[in-house]
Amino acid sequence: MEWKETARWIKFEEKVEKGGERWSKPHVATLSLHSLFELRTCIEKGTIMLDLEANTLPGVVEMITDSQIENGLLKADLKDKVMYTLLRKHRHQTKNLICALCSFVSSSLPSFIKIPPACVQLKNKFMKKLPRDAEASNVLVGEVDFLDTPFVAFVRLQQAVMLGALTEVPVPTRFLFILLGPKGKSKSYHEIGRAIATLMSDEVFHEIAYKAKDREDLLAGIDEFLDEVIVLPPGEWDPAIRIEPPKSLPSSDKSTQMNGDTPHSGGHGGGGHAVGDELKRTGKFCGGLVLDVKRKAPFFFSDFYDALHIQSLSAILFIYLGTVTNAITFGGLLGDATENMQGVLESFLGTAVSGAIFCLLAGQPLIILSSTGPVLVFEKLLFNFSRYHDFDYLEFRLWIGLWSAFFCLVLVATDASFLVQYFTRFTEEGFSSLISFIFIYDAFKTMLKLAHYYPINSDYKINYVTQYDCMCIAPTEGKIWYLSFSDRLNASWSSLSKKECLKYGGELVGKTCDFVPDITLMSFILFFGTYTCSMCLKKFKTSPFFPTTVRKLISDFAIVLAILIFCGVDALVGVETPKLIVPSEFKPTSPNRGWFVPPFGGNPWWVYLAAALPALLVTILLFMDQQITAVIVNRKEHRLKKSAGYHLDLFWVAVLLAVCSFMGLPWYVAATVISIAHIDSLKMETETSAPGEQPKFLGVREQRVTGVFVFILTGLSVFMSPILKFIPMPVLYGVFLYMGVASLNGVQFMDRLKLLLMPAKHQPDLIYLRHVPLRKVHLFTFIQLLCLALLWILKSTVAAIVFPVMILALVAVRKALDLIFSQHDLSFLDDVIPEKDKKKKEDEKKKNKKKQGSIDSDMEDVSVLQKKKSLKLF
Amino acid sequence: MEWKETARWIKFEEKVEKGGERWSKPHVATLSLHSLFELRTCIEKGTIMLDLEANTLPGVVEMITDSQIENGLLKADLKDKVMYTLLRKHRHQTKNLICALCSFVSSSLPSFIKIPPACVQLKNKFMKKLPRDAEASNVLVGEVDFLDTPFVAFVRLQQAVMLGALTEVPVPTRFLFILLGPKGKSKSYHEIGRAIATLMSDEVFHEIAYKAKDREDLLAGIDEFLDEVIVLPPGEWDPAIRIEPPKSLPSSDKSTQMNGDTPHSGGHGGGGHAVGDELKRTGKFCGGLVLDVKRKAPFFFSDFYDALHIQSLSAILFIYLGTVTNAITFGGLLGDATENMQGVLESFLGTAVSGAIFCLLAGQPLIILSSTGPVLVFEKLLFNFSRYHDFDYLEFRLWIGLWSAFFCLVLVATDASFLVQYFTRFTEEGFSSLISFIFIYDAFKTMLKLAHYYPINSDYKINYVTQYDCMCIAPTEGKIWYLSFSDRLNASWSSLSKKECLKYGGELVGKTCDFVPDITLMSFILFFGTYTCSMCLKKFKTSPFFPTTVRKLISDFAIVLAILIFCGVDALVGVETPKLIVPSEFKPTSPNRGWFVPPFGGNPWWVYLAAALPALLVTILLFMDQQITAVIVNRKEHRLKKSAGYHLDLFWVAVLLAVCSFMGLPWYVAATVISIAHIDSLKMETETSAPGEQPKFLGVREQRVTGVFVFILTGLSVFMSPILKFIPMPVLYGVFLYMGVASLNGVQFMDRLKLLLMPAKHQPDLIYLRHVPLRKVHLFTFIQLLCLALLWILKSTVAAIVFPVMILALVAVRKALDLIFSQHDLSFLDDVIPEKDKKKKEDEKKKNKKKQGSIDSDMEDVSVLQKKKSLKLF
Repeated sequence: MEWKETARWIKFEEKVEKGGERWSKPHVATLSLHSLFELRTCIEKGTIMLDLEANTLPGVVEMITDSQIENGLLKADLKDKVMYTLLRKHRHQTKNLICALCSFVSSSLPSFIKIPPACVQLKNKFMKKLPRDAEASNVLVGEVDFLDTPFVAFVRLQQAVMLGALTEVPVPTRFLFILLGPKGKSKSYHEIGRAIATLMSDEVFHEIAYKAKDREDLLAGIDEFLDEVIVLPPGEWDPAIRIEPPKSLPSSDKSTQMNGDTPHSGGHGGGGHAVGDELKRTGKFCGGLVLDVKRKAPFFFSDFYDALHIQSLSAILFIYLGTVTNAITFGGLLGDATENMQGVLESFLGTAVSGAIFCLLAGQPLIILSSTGPVLVFEKLLFNFSRYHDFDYLEFRLWIGLWSAFFCLVLVATDASFLVQYFTRFTEEGFSSLISFIFIYDAFKTMLKLAHYYPINSDYKINYVTQYDCMCIAPTEGKIWYLSFSDRLNASWSSLSKKECLKYGGELVGKTCDFVPDITLMSFILFFGTYTCSMCLKKFKTSPFFPTTVRKLISDFAIVLAILIFCGVDALVGVETPKLIVPSEFKPTSPNRGWFVPPFGGNPWWVYLAAALPALLVTILLFMDQQITAVIVNRKEHRLKKSAGYHLDLFWVAVLLAVCSFMGLPWYVAATVISIAHIDSLKMETETSAPGEQPKFLGVREQRVTGVFVFILTGLSVFMSPILKFIPMPVLYGVFLYMGVASLNGVQFMDRLKLLLMPAKHQPDLIYLRHVPLRKVHLFTFIQLLCLALLWILKSTVAAIVFPVMILALVAVRKALDLIFSQHDLSFLDDVIPEKDKKKKEDEKKKNKKKQGSIDSDMEDVSVLQKKKSLKLF
Repeated sequence: MEWKETARWIKFEEKVEKGGERWSKPHVATLSLHSLFELRTCIEKGTIMLDLEANTLPGVVEMITDSQIENGLLKADLKDKVMYTLLRKHRHQTKNLICALCSFVSSSLPSFIKIPPACVQLKNKFMKKLPRDAEASNVLVGEVDFLDTPFVAFVRLQQAVMLGALTEVPVPTRFLFILLGPKGKSKSYHEIGRAIATLMSDEVFHEIAYKAKDREDLLAGIDEFLDEVIVLPPGEWDPAIRIEPPKSLPSSDKSTQMNGDTPHSGGHGGGGHAVGDELKRTGKFCGGLVLDVKRKAPFFFSDFYDALHIQSLSAILFIYLGTVTNAITFGGLLGDATENMQGVLESFLGTAVSGAIFCLLAGQPLIILSSTGPVLVFEKLLFNFSRYHDFDYLEFRLWIGLWSAFFCLVLVATDASFLVQYFTRFTEEGFSSLISFIFIYDAFKTMLKLAHYYPINSDYKINYVTQYDCMCIAPTEGKIWYLSFSDRLNASWSSLSKKECLKYGGELVGKTCDFVPDITLMSFILFFGTYTCSMCLKKFKTSPFFPTTVRKLISDFAIVLAILIFCGVDALVGVETPKLIVPSEFKPTSPNRGWFVPPFGGNPWWVYLAAALPALLVTILLFMDQQITAVIVNRKEHRLKKSAGYHLDLFWVAVLLAVCSFMGLPWYVAATVISIAHIDSLKMETETSAPGEQPKFLGVREQRVTGVFVFILTGLSVFMSPILKFIPMPVLYGVFLYMGVASLNGVQFMDRLKLLLMPAKHQPDLIYLRHVPLRKVHLFTFIQLLCLALLWILKSTVAAIVFPVMILALVAVRKALDLIFSQHDLSFLDDVIPEKDKKKKEDEKKKNKKKQGSIDSDMEDVSVLQKKKSLKLF
């Protein structure tokens, strides 16, 4: 005879699988109503001893039995037997498991059940997961042959004490429930044991049990529990199903519970940016900037030591590769557009300097600066304009930059960033979705360009390999004088390489000249491979394989791993795919310029003033690009704790703008997709405490280290070209594709787009679908889609330069939506545009009134509040 | 004032989403205990009118009010008001939706709630989903200002009658529950309404309500319901969560419920083949065969009209492509092995004839015949042996075939197939997993071979394209005499194609001669693309997009679609990938043979007798291959309804063996992987009846049409080569890979392999994990894995010929496992090997005894049985 552990409760129930000799998965304890009523009877009729003073299990047991005998509940001659039974050896699942491995303990011996529940019972290594002040409740249930009536006792000890082997882990015991009964009803006793264990792990009853003064208090506690219990009809549920712990639990604070049904705290892409202190208009000169500095300064040191985590390393590598690729791509494009006045090296230098300074000192160090499309378009136009009018391009650009920086500083000084609050979810998501689409589109476009650059010979017939060649032949007669300076060439035209041949004016003749084998196909393999592999590895976190830490590590380093794998594949196949080539010499790309642009002398004086006009456009462009990205980064759903700094951000963008203009480097502004990728790679989750509890999103690892390191590495890339040249470009385009797709995750607009393709009955249970009619949701989606389509078309034309300005048009469209949709609908589909305080409050009042008035308005909303209210009908 | 529908119950609850103006997803109705008790009070104190005779709603309402007035429950002057209220217009969600689309009905008007539940309420198009004799229960709940005490009535009509607009769809109403109460407690009334609605949709209460003679019966019904109710503790579950309907429901027949926890009906890969009549030893000559024919004959006609479904078409296309690929692969290999005595055309002809006849007449037409690896190895050895000893290969083979057919017929006549019951899950899954692994391995091997055949030039530098060529030059001096007959060739060696050059003995010189661009990479893209695409499209069934029928269609045609897509990709890129080339002329591959093998004359007379020896090996080989596949196809989990025919199957295999031997065609036997693919492509599921109910696996579309068509098409392929030549081989290898991976699905062995990589806490809640210790599960997996590894090694050597015989060794290993594992463990991990009846029963008795004896043996097992038993402790 011994006691055997059969289940434990930390928050959820875990059973001992008899056959499996293991703990079951944590699950919601489903009880029968019957057992709860029986438990009530037990508490009503059994021995209740509160604040018992005892230090040992024998002491406790003796006092209980004595009390029972005193009250005539137990015959005195049974005392020894009862005590003997209760003090038998206790066997735990943990030990049992260890035992079983060596000695095959028969598992059919014991005839007692023991349930040590509430707050505790775990393997020793789980001890750290328990709160320090955890106390155990032990439930001992069993049947014996010497009793005619059940022996019931509920004991609360004065002080929580270690009762020896009673608990699995060294946790002091505070409560003890004992039920010994006559033979034949073990099943029933077991259920009663489960009932009290579940009660003891219930927050509310738990508290009552600690405070109870007498039996009545406990009974009242049980009644309260019964009143709040959730009942499943037997015909609709199979009691054998173990219910998985829910993702979110009703918190004991009922008022916060209400939020579960309000627009912005729903699980699905809820959000809305905080219109907190950051965006209040101070009315003072530089008031916002000063407040930003004051707000961010205290976090400055924590911004460094908060980065100490392996996750930061993966974020640095991931974002670094993204930034380098971006720098190369934009550098190349800028070089083309400006005849190398700004080239790849300038792009690297500018990115490194601007990014590092911004991340080190700005208000929101999670933002990653980069060249953006509109800036590129502007530079292209500017260069052509300068050339046409014979202006000194760099000097003209310098003055535009200086004016623009000045305007930006004016915007900072006047707290103009407060306008940001008019960017609602509609605008933000529209903008970020569009940027993501452009990312995805660009990734494919570059790949197609590559395919075009390395054309496949689809007419190639293996059999005719003998007919294929490419010969360099001497130029035709008409041209030959042009190259005759090198006579010896004539002798060996055929030995020239392709480049040499073209250089010397030779002609390439032959079927294979225009084709490049394998490279395009290999590039596509690398492109899709990297993307797919990144996606799969990222999802690995939710797979059941390997321990949590390993899975998390793999998931965190998903992109880096994918890049390494496909660099390996590329090296293995050995085809000459285009590689990442960073400039390895530190000097301006164009020999016609230096590292400093002199502000005067190149252009007539009036140009310095006229530069203010294009500078206005640049200002709007930078302001919109910067602030909308900042808004997206600072969204409530990212749970940032160190607050934002819109004014400070803009201040540094302005300063860097001036610096870059003087050095002839590209201009930098917040890049939406990479910033989102940065945040995604730094997300933190709780390490679950109670078994079965879902990990919760905690927030983002807010710090300056990852950003600073990314840009230092970018700067150092110039010296890393021997390593970097092993990375094929298609792999990096694959990463771009991944970034574009990943940044669409959790965007409500995308969810709504998907809804368009789903029949109503398959649609997920989204909050706004419960409250807004489907056709209105679709209408909203459709309008948004239309806006984006227009913006896309705009972007594809020269008008791209006014692209950021068009974002303002989005705000206007959103404002117009107020006419089509009710505020109620918009509050679910979007944020409400802030208006004059008074009107807002009025609206709210009206809304509340409406809600109270209609009894059939959604019952669920009220259910929790009314839960405690006990309505008596008769 | 009007009545508004707020929820309906068909089996599960569906709410009207006020804001969303739509039906919610069906969910388990969670009630509060409080509302159930209040409902009990309502039934206790309200008006109960059973078997009321009335035909109209006004009639019913009048009788209720009169009765209330009579009993003093309602003041007479309120009659008009009550009647007026109850007869107000009824508005339904369906109509509402249609209305709302054109007129924006304000949704805050009504102050009444109406819940028409139980059995019914659906849009008209759902009518057909309801059982014909469905009757409605209507629940009318609301608050009014003129009442001081609640007005409660529960009415059962004598006859179910149409009560006009009360119900959404024209379903007669049988029950009516009315609750009108004073203002202020609408929430509470609503909950009571939900409670009675849930009760009315409960199978048990439902029956009681129909049979109840008085109020007491109804109260007893509620009490019984309360007794069986499942309770969730409030702290562990959020009542706002809508619980999805469970996958399986407790059936009302409690005894079948018990099976839920027994080894072979668990959801996960449970099974075990039916040892029914099919495998009983009759003891009579041909007894089994006769029984098989008798058993299958009645299904013969249904075997044709049961195939009328679009799914059959997809199955035909899918399996056809698999079969053709297999025929080509094995045909090619056989041709190599036998110097074209049996080639691709023989392979096609043999496959078509054997397959069609087998599917038309055999016992299990779902089995697909094909050449298998062991047969190929045997042919290879046989051909070499014949050559070495100067035998006439085809004649020798004919005699082996005839002997073997004779032996097989002996096995049929003696009911030897009964031995099949010794193949437990251990053997079956071991065998089928191994075959699947071989399939996957072969798919990759062929692809690597292809890469070897079309080598990539990894040293190719784009710049040196001018240096690359491949020239055909005249043979060196030593050889020139050999080809000098064609003098004009000397002049134009360089104009020869590769093949011609080699043919005439020219030499290929140049860097590109040994390389083939693009083809290998394109092949890999097609290979992985087809596989991935098939997998994704197959999974599309469970995605939420598009209506169910579309999704099912896409999923059914997944492989065909994937093949078409990648044929398109191949055509688009236009690279010369290897294509499916079927022979287009109908004559023996080798000119040295005809269509009939003469039985005498080629070899000395004793060879005819000696052939019996290798025939014995062939017999074992065929018997094992055939029957183990048959066992896998006939597994219980496939829910075949037309029963198996092991003896009949073997009979036809024997007959076809003789036929093929005479015609010099390859021998055919059941192919495991393709047969499983065939079954998978023919699986049927229920069209769900009640909203929210999970579709159930119904069985397999058992018929002969798909098989017969597949093989007719295979035969006709000879004439389809102009179409088939567009299908690239890598696409078909991708299909092979898919087949191999898909056939591993649901194999318990694979589940257990995965368990090896999972930490215990992430492991799924598999039945055997609840009952068998993990280390034993792992040990079992490990032994199985070891066996397969040994078999794999064996398979790779010449010993492959005894491969099927080694399956017998698996049976022996399984027998030995009885010594290591307890029968209890094996019953969960495997099937129990049948033994003498007596001992079996004894074991069972012992087991039962054990179960009763140990009170702490798994409680869940007993819980359902004891559910009805009401234990009183005190």
